Amino acid sequence: MDWLDAVAWNADGLVPAVAQDAASGEVLMLAWMNRESLARTAETGEAVYWSRSRRSLWRKGETSGHLQRVVEIRLDCDADAIVLRVEQAGGIACHTGRRRCFFNLLEREGGVCRWVATDPVLADPGSFRGG
Amino acid sequence: MDWLDAVAWNADGLVPAVAQDAASGEVLMLAWMNRESLARTAETGEAVYWSRSRRSLWRKGETSGHLQRVVEIRLDCDADAIVLRVEQAGGIACHTGRRRCFFNLLEREGGVCRWVATDPVLADPGSFRGG
Repeated sequence: MDWLDAVAWNADGLVPAVAQDAASGEVLMLAWMNRESLARTAETGEAVYWSRSRRSLWRKGETSGHLQRVVEIRLDCDADAIVLRVEQAGGIACHTGRRRCFFNLLEREGGVCRWVATDPVLADPGSFRGG
Repeated sequence: MDWLDAVAWNADGLVPAVAQDAASGEVLMLAWMNRESLARTAETGEAVYWSRSRRSLWRKGETSGHLQRVVEIRLDCDADAIVLRVEQAGGIACHTGRRRCFFNLLEREGGVCRWVATDPVLADPGSFRGG
């Protein structure tokens, strides 16, 4: 069986892909892949996702320069989720100019919860375009 | 605005949630949450997911004993993905008895790709039930 057929693509032909920094272990982002993006990621060694908003292949960093070199690709027990261990060019994965997309931390005080942005903006999003 | 309204729930009212080991940084699993499961996770400090197959709330470890104590809850820039940093009871997150669900590594040799299971089975899945 083709290795791509082992993936349990969802009804839209997609699978969620988590990018994790290979050095720090930090979870950088979650994006989506279709069959072609996963094939290209494996072939090129650079992360290629599927942009659900633009409905097109999205080579991470193609406009921002923030490429992701892929060290490892893993599939889970149900074959419906992927983890990429990556080296993040520029140390910036998020289109907001932050290191990672998961910069909103849930804080709970006196039973009240709120999301608090914890990570500094390292580069002006105006200085690069998109992801 | 209620902190739960900040989440960009998908058409099914769900959001993907990545569980990461708080100590090692290893990505353990990806599951799904609905509004109630995220609320309960925040309230109880233990991971509660939504089982898409059973269509019910799923307190992780309720049958296996492999609970996840939640250290941190994070939301991404688009508010459509969550990361939990967790302490994994028993050191086993996967229903197959492995440490993590992402035990299939993509190996590439001579242009041919295949998935290879890399992680040992630490407990007989027959000795506990489900997740």
